[in-house]
Parts: sequence; structure tokens; C-alpha cells
Amino acid sequence: MSKTYAVPLDVPKSEQDTYIRNIKTITHDSGRLMLFAGDQKVEHLNDDFYGDGIHADDHDPEHLFRIASKAKIGCLAVQLGLVARYGADYPKVPYLIKINSKTHLVPKSQAEPFSNLLHTIDQVVAFRKSSKLNILGIGYTIYLGSEYESEMLRTAAQVIFEAHRNGLVAVLWIYPRGKAVGNEKDAHLIAGAAGVAACLGADFVKVNPPKGEGASSAELIREATLAAGRTKVVCAGGSSVDATTFLTQLWEQIHIGGCSGNATGRNIHQKSLDEAVRMCNAIYAITVDGASVEDALKVYHGD
Amino acid sequence: MSKTYAVPLDVPKSEQDTYIRNIKTITHDSGRLMLFAGDQKVEHLNDDFYGDGIHADDHDPEHLFRIASKAKIGCLAVQLGLVARYGADYPKVPYLIKINSKTHLVPKSQAEPFSNLLHTIDQVVAFRKSSKLNILGIGYTIYLGSEYESEMLRTAAQVIFEAHRNGLVAVLWIYPRGKAVGNEKDAHLIAGAAGVAACLGADFVKVNPPKGEGASSAELIREATLAAGRTKVVCAGGSSVDATTFLTQLWEQIHIGGCSGNATGRNIHQKSLDEAVRMCNAIYAITVDGASVEDALKVYHGD
Amino acid sequence: MSKTYAVPLDVPKSEQDTYIRNIKTITHDSGRLMLFAGDQKVEHLNDDFYGDGIHADDHDPEHLFRIASKAKIGCLAVQLGLVARYGADYPKVPYLIKINSKTHLVPKSQAEPFSNLLHTIDQVVAFRKSSKLNILGIGYTIYLGSEYESEMLRTAAQVIFEAHRNGLVAVLWIYPRGKAVGNEKDAHLIAGAAGVAACLGADFVKVNPPKGEGASSAELIREATLAAGRTKVVCAGGSSVDATTFLTQLWEQIHIGGCSGNATGRNIHQKSLDEAVRMCNAIYAITVDGASVEDALKVYHGD
Amino acid sequence: MSKTYAVPLDVPKSEQDTYIRNIKTITHDSGRLMLFAGDQKVEHLNDDFYGDGIHADDHDPEHLFRIASKAKIGCLAVQLGLVARYGADYPKVPYLIKINSKTHLVPKSQAEPFSNLLHTIDQVVAFRKSSKLNILGIGYTIYLGSEYESEMLRTAAQVIFEAHRNGLVAVLWIYPRGKAVGNEKDAHLIAGAAGVAACLGADFVKVNPPKGEGASSAELIREATLAAGRTKVVCAGGSSVDATTFLTQLWEQIHIGGCSGNATGRNIHQKSLDEAVRMCNAIYAITVDGASVEDALKVYHGD
Amino acid sequence: MSKTYAVPLDVPKSEQDTYIRNIKTITHDSGRLMLFAGDQKVEHLNDDFYGDGIHADDHDPEHLFRIASKAKIGCLAVQLGLVARYGADYPKVPYLIKINSKTHLVPKSQAEPFSNLLHTIDQVVAFRKSSKLNILGIGYTIYLGSEYESEMLRTAAQVIFEAHRNGLVAVLWIYPRGKAVGNEKDAHLIAGAAGVAACLGADFVKVNPPKGEGASSAELIREATLAAGRTKVVCAGGSSVDATTFLTQLWEQIHIGGCSGNATGRNIHQKSLDEAVRMCNAIYAITVDGASVEDALKVYHGD
Repeated sequence: MSKTYAVPLDVPKSEQDTYIRNIKTITHDSGRLMLFAGDQKVEHLNDDFYGDGIHADDHDPEHLFRIASKAKIGCLAVQLGLVARYGADYPKVPYLIKINSKTHLVPKSQAEPFSNLLHTIDQVVAFRKSSKLNILGIGYTIYLGSEYESEMLRTAAQVIFEAHRNGLVAVLWIYPRGKAVGNEKDAHLIAGAAGVAACLGADFVKVNPPKGEGASSAELIREATLAAGRTKVVCAGGSSVDATTFLTQLWEQIHIGGCSGNATGRNIHQKSLDEAVRMCNAIYAITVDGASVEDALKVYHGD
Repeated sequence: MSKTYAVPLDVPKSEQDTYIRNIKTITHDSGRLMLFAGDQKVEHLNDDFYGDGIHADDHDPEHLFRIASKAKIGCLAVQLGLVARYGADYPKVPYLIKINSKTHLVPKSQAEPFSNLLHTIDQVVAFRKSSKLNILGIGYTIYLGSEYESEMLRTAAQVIFEAHRNGLVAVLWIYPRGKAVGNEKDAHLIAGAAGVAACLGADFVKVNPPKGEGASSAELIREATLAAGRTKVVCAGGSSVDATTFLTQLWEQIHIGGCSGNATGRNIHQKSLDEAVRMCNAIYAITVDGASVEDALKVYHGD
Repeated sequence: MSKTYAVPLDVPKSEQDTYIRNIKTITHDSGRLMLFAGDQKVEHLNDDFYGDGIHADDHDPEHLFRIASKAKIGCLAVQLGLVARYGADYPKVPYLIKINSKTHLVPKSQAEPFSNLLHTIDQVVAFRKSSKLNILGIGYTIYLGSEYESEMLRTAAQVIFEAHRNGLVAVLWIYPRGKAVGNEKDAHLIAGAAGVAACLGADFVKVNPPKGEGASSAELIREATLAAGRTKVVCAGGSSVDATTFLTQLWEQIHIGGCSGNATGRNIHQKSLDEAVRMCNAIYAITVDGASVEDALKVYHGD
Repeated sequence: MSKTYAVPLDVPKSEQDTYIRNIKTITHDSGRLMLFAGDQKVEHLNDDFYGDGIHADDHDPEHLFRIASKAKIGCLAVQLGLVARYGADYPKVPYLIKINSKTHLVPKSQAEPFSNLLHTIDQVVAFRKSSKLNILGIGYTIYLGSEYESEMLRTAAQVIFEAHRNGLVAVLWIYPRGKAVGNEKDAHLIAGAAGVAACLGADFVKVNPPKGEGASSAELIREATLAAGRTKVVCAGGSSVDATTFLTQLWEQIHIGGCSGNATGRNIHQKSLDEAVRMCNAIYAITVDGASVEDALKVYHGD
Repeated sequence: MSKTYAVPLDVPKSEQDTYIRNIKTITHDSGRLMLFAGDQKVEHLNDDFYGDGIHADDHDPEHLFRIASKAKIGCLAVQLGLVARYGADYPKVPYLIKINSKTHLVPKSQAEPFSNLLHTIDQVVAFRKSSKLNILGIGYTIYLGSEYESEMLRTAAQVIFEAHRNGLVAVLWIYPRGKAVGNEKDAHLIAGAAGVAACLGADFVKVNPPKGEGASSAELIREATLAAGRTKVVCAGGSSVDATTFLTQLWEQIHIGGCSGNATGRNIHQKSLDEAVRMCNAIYAITVDGASVEDALKVYHGD
């Protein structure tokens, strides 16, 4: 697996080739991950897919698959049900199954956040086999600091262990959230979250970019990329911003903050198919090809 | 399965023929579903079957089976226990097993809504086999926005996955409900619910018709039918209204809103057997045969 | 099984003979059930077995078995543990295992009612096999309207399905109870409970006799016996009353209300062995033999 | 098994010899049980083993095993973990595994009492086999009237059923406790508890001695020994009292109250090894040998 | 296994050699345990690894493995995920898998403490086999006095039983904590905790050093080491203090308090690699080699 990625020991002998193939494919052998996040139809219902500033192409869930099939990505992260419905028409897309999800209807002030497992790893593996799709990994979200943290920590440990036993790459989304969490964007707290991912054995952990006074977000995230050790950190994209700002942030997260990629959703799919594909390719240029922001913007502008 | 319906990839090879046969049968090869909902004896206790404006024929649960055996329908949705008791005398009825149900006794103000699984898919499949009945699919209700949403989302994903593995059609009923839900009929929220059904891999999703200012319900539901993608939307019938109003609404839901059928209960079974059969046939004419409201009314009036 | 009782389709082929034998035995081929309820030692602790107006014979739990072995009954409903201890000495008694029970210590005002499964159907079946006792069926209680309703509905559906798969008769006790229930004796609500039993696939449902103004309890219960369809309704006996009143009520429940039997406990076992046997036989005369109240009273008085 | 003890029917044929051997051994073929209770290191932490009036011999848990190996007892009731650690050095002691336990840290005013299963019957049976120890039975505690009663009733029924299927004697400890319980020592309530044990199929039930006006505790407990039927009642010993009082109470519980033995802990192990052994032998003399109080006191004083 | 350590009887014959090998290895055949605790990245997030007074070497989780591979230790206690990621490069380190963990985000005032199982013993055993790593035991934390105590007691009993069935050494961490606990450092309470560990069958129990007036912590802990019987007590290290104080405390815990080792984290890993190794070796000298404080300090200072 070259120098960039060692096989963790919870991957059994018989599955090491599969794991290596999956991690190489998902990172294009770069050790860095361009994750196209398409799980918001549960997380945010239709808010991210319909409304002001959102292109009509995004009204239809097939938009995600159209983008993923035309653009350069590491993987498309979506729920299994959606893949089951569209996968036959988009067989070459590299998929990562997001195995837990919740809606945003119940506010934090009403109940502590909890996201339940939708499918087991056994089901993902059975689906990979019978569908013959290119399923490379799974994703799971933890709300650290929630009163349901204990259940999510356990499930995370379980799904990572089982994913690795089946040669799948395991990605955690970790967001500190709940009554006990003061500042979700605190750099030290986010570093703690990254360390938790390391202890649980995740291959990648997606965290939100930290915010703080006296230092840029990219500088602040170094504590997390250190704390995560051999588990690699990717940053969430957040809501839509202009392309230059977005790509500059990504470049800095990688080159200043030590991140190993991106996890981007709305900044891609809220655009028209054509523009979304160009945005994907620009992100890919920075994450996987090591391009500069300038070069990536050329890709975005189709130059 | 023709152009109207692709087999989702969570249906394994060995069950694709069964699934195609079931989806063709339940839709009469039209891609649209005429669902006769008969699960209210748990949901509303005896309120929908006894009282003012309800024909005495409806006092006896066998009424549902008598209608279903004489009228044109896509399927009769009832709980397994009732099918077990009457199925032998009504062997040709196409059945859809409603696998969760609750009563309306505990109000929302007392406890968040939750509807528990009554039977597993394995039990439905065992029952299909030993009874030799014409069991085509299963139905499951989610209360989105309830504090028990996480459990219902998980169970829904599980039962859809297992239903598909056994060639059964999977229908979700999704109602936003609970302390966190302001307006259950909001079009954007209902579109979100339809998108959730898509992510869970449902074949059909039953939602309530939206209400809002400045647009008709049928216009408002277009957001949902778009958001649902390849998952097809059917609309709930609600409480009894006059036939013209009811059939006009249904026609508009399909031809303006993009819906793929109906889910109707009280507007059918609260009538005498004869009238109920005519109402079924009128609904069927619009949903499956593509009839106009005028033609459907002729069917209803027995012209 | 004659015209009076059809085998439900969740009884598999291989168990249909067992089911028919059990339902014939428990109803003495009459289609009506004389159920001797002996589960109160958990439900009411020692209140029903010791105190004013209770014969000393009732202080010892063996009293129940002595009555059941000497009198005419359809079945004795008791918990498995008690049957295990006395069954060897009373091998001819027809048994129905009551598989859930709770005490009355925690009041409704403190916690919503919930009665937990004590034994699984698999255990009842294993016990039937190894004990060689005459175990014909199982009984399960639901508190409809309790916040734990969802769990009890699910368990009821499960135990009925499993009981039928093993040829056992399934009886539900359904009592509307909990903070959400205004009037537990409301006829419309009790009819709803009877309809729930039908949807769950029960063979019999025991409900409390309704109370209301302007109509007798027996008239009021007709809504329930209609709503229950092919599931047969039996009425609870309640606390001890004089024999004439009790037997007249029972006769009316059957001949006016459409009930199919009785479920009687305290009105039997709080008497001396001799009187209890005569009372059983009088009840049996009405329920199974179709006797008049007058004739039943003669049986009771040993004429 | 002679006239004193019938084999309950939930003991399968293949295990009847084991059950008979166990019940004979644990009662020394007397039908009465001398139970030495040593489970307080969890129940009361170190309070019963260290402090004023407690002999230094009791500071070390091996004290329990030393007493049990030198004295006459029916069984030593302790948790499995302790038996695993000391059993090899005390192979002849008759053991009863206490399979649930809780500490007394959380007061009733804070949370309703619940004692969780530590080991399953399968584990006890596997341990009996691999350790070759003399394991005769299991013990389980129920807090009747607690809001967790339903879970404990179910577990009790399960462990008794499984214990009997493996030929083990099943002993319940039942204490009415929780917000809903007014007077834990009420004779009628304790009789109710004894009746519950009978319905669950226990071989023995340990209850606290009742207290009431106008009658001695031994007279008051007759209601319980009647209500328990063929399930035998043993009385808890409670905190340390002088030997004459203790032994007189025990004699009266058996000869006036109808009890079938004792369950004694602190009155034994808080003494020095020598005195504890003499106390055991005195208790044994009354319980198993039918000795008078006078004769038992001679045993205690080493005369 | 010599006189110092008897094999508990829940270790089956077939695994006794493995157990003896593991307990000898983990204690270097001394009967005493030098446990290097590295599980704080979940327990305390990044607080113990980044900040004032913490060496930069500690920012990276590999620091723990570097220390463990260079220093003398009994075992390194960490979560499975971290071992899976680094184990291949540190194959000779003796590992103890910490199988439950929680973060400190939710304060006691908000919710009672509960630490959930991350991996089952079956998974640890599968991992031991496929990784070929030197996995000697498992660790589990109980918060005694928490309202979740019952669940943690059960899980502890289960994991100890299963660990022993697989020849693994079982270590408990027991901390009295929760609303019901007044003084977590009370000597009598800590002795109770040690007794609980004995009843659950643990090989070692880690407790916090008690505090009280009129006696040193080492004197106070004697009650616990007595109450624990054959289960051995090790003391937590707590936050960083100067080396002389730390090593003196450890020496006294062993030689005055009767402890059988140490469990030390922050006092080791917050130092530079070189100093951490020297500190480990100094601790090892006292715990395993029986060195004096003076000699241990020489080791620490590299003399």
C-alpha cells in the first residue's frame, strides 16, 4: 500500500487486498480523499435541494449521481436506498454508504442529538455483492457530547471493526453537539474529536473547520491533525460560498492544517450540472493532484 | 419491467422475477398504485367504522375484504392478523401487509408518536409461503420529527432492505408529527419527507396532501414528487368528502402534482358495499386507467 | 372444524390438526369459551385469595387446580410456574398459559401500565412437549392507551403469530388504561379494543363489560362483538357478586351482546371447593351448553 | 424424591435425576433449606464486613469460604466471580450462585430499585461443568412494586425456567420496595410476594419476616407460607442480634409460621471463624435436624 | 502459576495455559502489575495531550507506542482502534485492550455517568488471532453508584467471564461516581468497590487512592486490599506531580497499603519520550522489581 497508507490490523489477512484496493481507489493512490457528500436529503430534508440560490437541477436526487458520474471524485457518500435506486444507471461511480442519518426537525433544545444506524455492515456487504457496485467504504456520524454519545461511540467502534473485517474503508463524521457543548467550533474540542476517531480506528474523520481568535482556521486545525495520528482528517465544506473563498480554504486546510482532503456537499450540488462538475474537478485538483488555488480556479472556470 | 419501473439493486438476482411480478400486479403494469387502506381499526380504533355517516356494512371488518374482492384495486393494505382470519375466503385479493400500527389514544401533547413493528419481514414471508395468499408488499409508517424518529428511520431502512431481498414492494407512510413539527401540511416539509423515502429506498411513499397560500395542493406537491426522484408519491385520502371533490383532487394530484396514485380508506369503506365498490372502481379509473374526472364519476354513479 | 371456527392462515399446514384439536377441546366444540381465570396471584397479589368473604380453601393455590380438575371448564388460565408445580397431580386439566403478568402495586398515577412477557412461546411449546400436559393455548394482556401500548401491541402480534405456528389458541386480554384513557368502560372504546384484537389475529379477546347510560351492558357490547369480526369476544367477570346477577349478566352478554363465552376468576375461586365447582358448572351450562339462567342456577344450587 | 419434594414439570426428563440430587443435597433430604447468604459484598459494599462489632476475620472474603467448608450448611449463596476465585480451594462446599446484585448507593428516593442479571444460566451451567464444583442452584432478587418490577418478573421467570431445564434449584429473594410500597414488612404484602414466587415456579422464596400489631411475626408469616403453596418459604436473617433471640425466631418461623428454613448472612459471618461455624451448626440443627432452641443453643455454645 | 497467582475456575481447562502465560507476562511473574494507561484520548479528549506543561511529543498518539516499546511495562492499556493502527509497527508491546470509554463532555450534574462497551470479547479475541499481537487482557470501567450501575455491573461480569474463557486477564477500573456518591475518595467506599471487583471475578481492580483525615492514603487503602481478597488492587496515578512525590506514593501504596501495582498515564506520557521512558522504568523498578524509592529515582534520573 506504499508509504502513504498502512493496513490497520483489524483488517484480516483475507481482506487486505480488498482494503488496499478500496483505499487506493477512494484516494486515487494519493492518500487524500475527495469526498462528495450527498446525504443531506435526510439530514436537512429538502432545504439544501430547493429554494433561493439552488439550481433547478438539484430538485431531483438523480442530480447527485449525474455529477458523480461525470466529475472527478474520490467517492459519493449517500444512503444505501438511494444507491439501490440509481446505481444500475451509474455503475462506475465510487460509492461510500452513509449508514446513519437523522433529520434536523427536532432541535437541540428539545432533545439531545442521536443518529441511528440505518443499515448494518452485513447488509452493506450483501448489497455490495449482489449489486456488483463499486462500494468502497462506509460513513458514520457521532455527536460527541450528546447524552447519546455512549451509544454512538459503541456503534462507531462496531461498524469500523466490521467494515475493516470486510475490507471497507471507514469514515467518521464527528460533530461535538448537545447541551453539554459550549462552542462546537473550538479547536481544542475538535482536536479531541479527531483523537476519538483515532482510538476508534477510523481511516478518515470529517470534522468542522475550527474557529478562534488570533489564528486562521487552517492553523487551528493542526492540533486536530496531530491528535488524529494516522487517522486522516478531512474538513466539512459547510454552506455555499464563492468558489475562490472555498478553494482557498481547502488549500489551506491541506497545506497549512495538515488535512488529507475534503468532504463537500452543498458547494457542489446546489449548482447546475455543468458548474457542479467543474467545481468537483477543481476540488479534486487541490485534494488529489496537489494543484494550487489558481490552477484549481482555472479548472472551475473551465479554462 | 418496461420503462416505467426499474428494479432497485437491493433486490437480489434470485428475487427479481418475484419483485417484477409484484410491482406489475400491484400497479396493473401502469406504474401507478391504487392502494385501498384498511389499517384504521388499529390507528383510529372503531371511530372510522361505527357512527354517524358510516354505513352499517362497515361495522364488520369483513366489509374491507368484501369490497376488495369485488372492486378494482391495486392492493388492500391491512394488518397480518386480519388477513390471516379472512384470507382463506378472499384468496384473490392482492394484499399489502401493514407491519406497524398504533392507536390514537395517547395524544401528541402527552407523548411523541411512535408506531412499533408488529411483524417482521421474515414472518410476512413465512406467512406468504404457508398461506399461498397474494401478498405483494409491505407498508410501514414513519412519524418524521418525532423524538422516536431515529428508531422509525432505522426500522424503515431495515424493512425496505428485507422486503426487497424477498421480492416484496415497500411502501412508506410518512407523516411529519410531534412537538417539533409546526405545520404538518407544509409543502416544503412534505417534500423533505418524500426525499427521506427516496434515501431509504422505498418504492412508494404515501404523504398527506400539502396546504399553503397562493397555490393549489396539487401544485404544491410537485416539490415532493421531484424530491422523491424514482420513489413514487401517492397521496392520502383523508376523511370522507363528496365524490366529485375527492376524484377531482386525485386527478389533479396525478396530472398536476406528478403523483403516482392514491391511498384511500375512509372515502371507500364508510360507504355501503355497493357504493364502496363503485368508488373503488372510479378511483381505479383515474389512477390506473388514466380516466378523466368526468368518466370516473360515471363509474361511481354506475352509469 | 365445522362451520363455527375457521383455521386462521397463520397456522401452518403441519399444525392445523393440532390447532383444530385445541380449539375444539377448549370450546368443547361449541365455538364458545368457558375460561377459568387463575392468574390473579400476580395481578392482585394475595388480595383475591385471603380476606373477608373469601373461603379458606382459597388460601392455597392448589385450590385452583382442585376446582379445575373437578368442574366443567374450557381451560384454566394460569402462569407457567404454577402449572409446572401442580400439573403432574392434575394432568387432565385443560391449561391456557398466561404469559404476561404484573402486580397492582405501582398505581396508574405513578407509571403507565405495562405487563411484561414472562415466558416465550418457544418455552411454552417446550414445556408442553416435556410435561405432556394438556396445554391448549396462551393468554396475553394489552393495556391499550398506555404509553407502553406500542411494546404490548408488538409483543401481542408476535405471540399470536408464534402461538398459531405451534397450533396453540391465542387469547388477548385488552383493557384500555393509562393517563390517556378517560373512561375505561366506554362501549365505543371497548369496541375499538375488540377491533385491535381482530387486527392482531387473536382467536378470543377478553374485555371488560361496557357501561353507559340508556342501554344495558349487554346491548352496549354488541358494537364490540361486531367490530371483532371473526375474533370472538368473552367478557371479564370482575369482583364477586351473587350468583343470579352473575349468571344473568353472562347469559345476556352471550344472547344479547353476541359474546362467545366468559372469563371468570374471583366469582369462582373465592368460594369453597364444592361451591366453586358448582359455580363453574353453572357457567359452563350457559356458555357451552346454551342453558337458560334458570337451568344454570339449578346447577349452581346442586338441584 | 420422597413425599417432601415433587419434581416440577419444567424440569425435563433428562435432568430429573440431577434436580433430585440437587434438591436432596441442598436440603439434606429434609425438605428444608439452611442457606448461608454471602452476597452482601455487592449489596452492602464493605459495610457488613468492616467496622464496629464485626470480627477482623470478616475483612477478608475468604472468611465466607472458610466458614462454609467447616460448618453444616445447605448452601453458600455467593456471586460467581467469588466462587471462581476461591472454589478450587473449597471444592466440597455446596454452592448456590447469586446471579443478580446491586449496591445500596443509589437511594430509593433517587431511583426505583433494580438488580441486573450478572450471569446467565447458560454461563452458570458452563461454569458448573468446567469447574466441577458442587453448584446446586441459583438465586435471583426481585423488588416487587418497583417501577422495574416488570423487567425483574420476566427475568425471574426466565432464569427459573432455564435453571430447571438444567436441573438446578431456583431460589427467589423477593422484597417489596419502591415509591409505591408503603410498608415493606406488611404480612399481606409479603404473602402476595410469596404467591408471586409460586406463579413464577420458584423452589424456594426468601422473604423478610413480617411485622404487625396483635400477632407475632411467626404467626403473621403463615399467610405467606399458605399463599406460596408448594413453593417453600425461607426467612431472611437481617442484621446481627444475640444468638438466643435469633434462634428462637428461626424456630418459630418454622414451627409456627410454616417456613421451610432460613437465609442467614450477617448473623453468621460477622463473627470469628470459630463462632461463625458454631452459629451455622446451631441454625442447621433447627432447620435441618428439627432441634429445639435449647439444643441449638448448646451447639452454638459448643457444649 | 506458582504461589502468587491461582487460576480462577472460570478459565476453562483448554485456556489455562494461555491464562497462566498472560498473567505471568503482564506481571513479569511478580504477581504485580505495572499498567501504562493510554486510554485518555477518549476519556479526556485532547486535554491530557496538548497544552501547558505537556511535552510536544505527546501531541501525536504514536508517542504512547514509542514509550511502550522502549520502556519496561506490564502492559499498555489502550482502545482497540489505536492498537489496530499502530500495532504492526510495535509488535512486541504487551497490550491490554480498554473495551469501554466515554468522554468527559457531559458533566455529572447533567447526566449520570455511563461508559459503553466499544468492543466485545469475541472481537478482541478475533483481533488477537488475526493481528498476532501480544494481547494479554482487557480493561473495563464501572461507575459505582451511578444510576447506570446495574448495566455496568452486568457488562463487567459478562466481560470478565468471557475474557477468562479466552485466557485473557481481566482488569476493572472502579470509580464511585454520580449524584448518589458523596465522597468519591472515601476509604470505606473504595474498599466496597474493591469488594465488588472480587465478587465479579476481576484479576485486578484499579481504584483511586483514598483520602481521609488522621491516616495516610496508603494506610487507608489497606481496607480495600483486604476486601478485595484474591483480586489484586492497583492505584490510579492521577494528574502529573513531581517524580519523588509520585514514586513515594507508589512505594507506600504497595508496601503499606498492600497494593499490587500501579496504573499510570499522565505522569508518564506528558513527558518527552526520553523522560517518559525513564519514568516508566522507575515505576517498574518499584512495582515489579521491589526497588526502593531512592533506587527508582536513580532510574528516573538516568543514573
